[in-house]
Amino acid sequence: MSVAGVKALCFDVFGTVVDWRGSIAREVDALGIACDGHAFADAWRGRYQPAMEEVRSGRRPWVKLDVLHRENLVAVLAAFGITLSDAEIDQLNRVWHRLDPWPDAVQGLQRLKGNYILATLSNGNVALMVNMARHGGLPWDVILGAEVAGAYKPSPQAYLGSAALLDLEPGACMMVAAHNGDLVAAAACGLRTAFVARPSEHGPQQTSDQRAEHAFDVVADSFVDLADKLGC
Amino acid sequence: MSVAGVKALCFDVFGTVVDWRGSIAREVDALGIACDGHAFADAWRGRYQPAMEEVRSGRRPWVKLDVLHRENLVAVLAAFGITLSDAEIDQLNRVWHRLDPWPDAVQGLQRLKGNYILATLSNGNVALMVNMARHGGLPWDVILGAEVAGAYKPSPQAYLGSAALLDLEPGACMMVAAHNGDLVAAAACGLRTAFVARPSEHGPQQTSDQRAEHAFDVVADSFVDLADKLGC
Repeated sequence: MSVAGVKALCFDVFGTVVDWRGSIAREVDALGIACDGHAFADAWRGRYQPAMEEVRSGRRPWVKLDVLHRENLVAVLAAFGITLSDAEIDQLNRVWHRLDPWPDAVQGLQRLKGNYILATLSNGNVALMVNMARHGGLPWDVILGAEVAGAYKPSPQAYLGSAALLDLEPGACMMVAAHNGDLVAAAACGLRTAFVARPSEHGPQQTSDQRAEHAFDVVADSFVDLADKLGC
Repeated sequence: MSVAGVKALCFDVFGTVVDWRGSIAREVDALGIACDGHAFADAWRGRYQPAMEEVRSGRRPWVKLDVLHRENLVAVLAAFGITLSDAEIDQLNRVWHRLDPWPDAVQGLQRLKGNYILATLSNGNVALMVNMARHGGLPWDVILGAEVAGAYKPSPQAYLGSAALLDLEPGACMMVAAHNGDLVAAAACGLRTAFVARPSEHGPQQTSDQRAEHAFDVVADSFVDLADKLGC
């Protein structure tokens, strides 16, 4: 499969490139906190979209994701009845900078990098993405996304601002994500789309985003499969 | 030598990492244009600071460096009495995306990357820096600088905005440049400083920036020497 004119692949990261749920659960369990690590991770991630919606809606001025993550962490700790020091909260909040890649991610990205510019197009802030890339060996060419575009996905400006920084037309960019909604929003901005299934992102009971629900340009079941399908 | 607390090295690029003068001269000569390639490169670069000063001064709204480079190229072509098509001008303007690294740059950066975040802090726009990195194999962790900070060096916002995107205090960032003025401006913002001499950036007759003229934290004569001095 070839997708004519695509110069850059723009990656969703949380869930698509890295396993946030498993990584957070492992770190919470290692802390010896008396709770189920996966339940903690789910509760933390559950506050993600509502927190960003405060910014997307204009009710709150721009604030980077590290700040939203920390506010959400404080709330989740309270809900679980867990007490940590400020320093411990800071340390745990940085787990998002230390998320592990899915097993196929690095190999696939290395192959894709031969033919395409690899950009992050995540809601994660720049420092988070840089530290995560160094932690996991993710070979990005450039960190784009919410912070540099000044808008959280799925706001159009997140996609269009990232393409503009690459000096590319939206149609020369392909959004890669494990989430139907992200790809639908990207396509509405003129980006090409690749769905990579991550059916256990939310654990064994996951029901959403099990498969591509729209006519995306490419559908793959791993980054290695994506590299195969893009002829890399 | 160790510089306590430095997490990120922030690089000037034109002249410090890449040989703009030699690269442009080679490309101009290869085009068969009836002029001296080095004289052409010098004339083009001579319009660089005045063009940015229109933006820094506020007389002109923000515009990316690719646009300034193209306006300057049109003026230089006219001054040299050279006629090119619009497509040829576009192609030649992109030579800034294809500048070759100094011979020690890639090896030094690869060593430095083991201990430090490597960021560009250049006046070049994001697309230019991304394409140049892929051309020359420059292993940046992140593209920062003028376009994402919304200000051209030596405006303080160029340095401070880049540090903020890394979520680092200015003192945790070390500016690396071959230009005394760039480092003085960075130091005034609280960044640490490393001077790397490029005494032939402007050719054999160069008189400026032959050596460090201030008490910078590190002074080196190549990126390999910088890696040695930073214990990488």
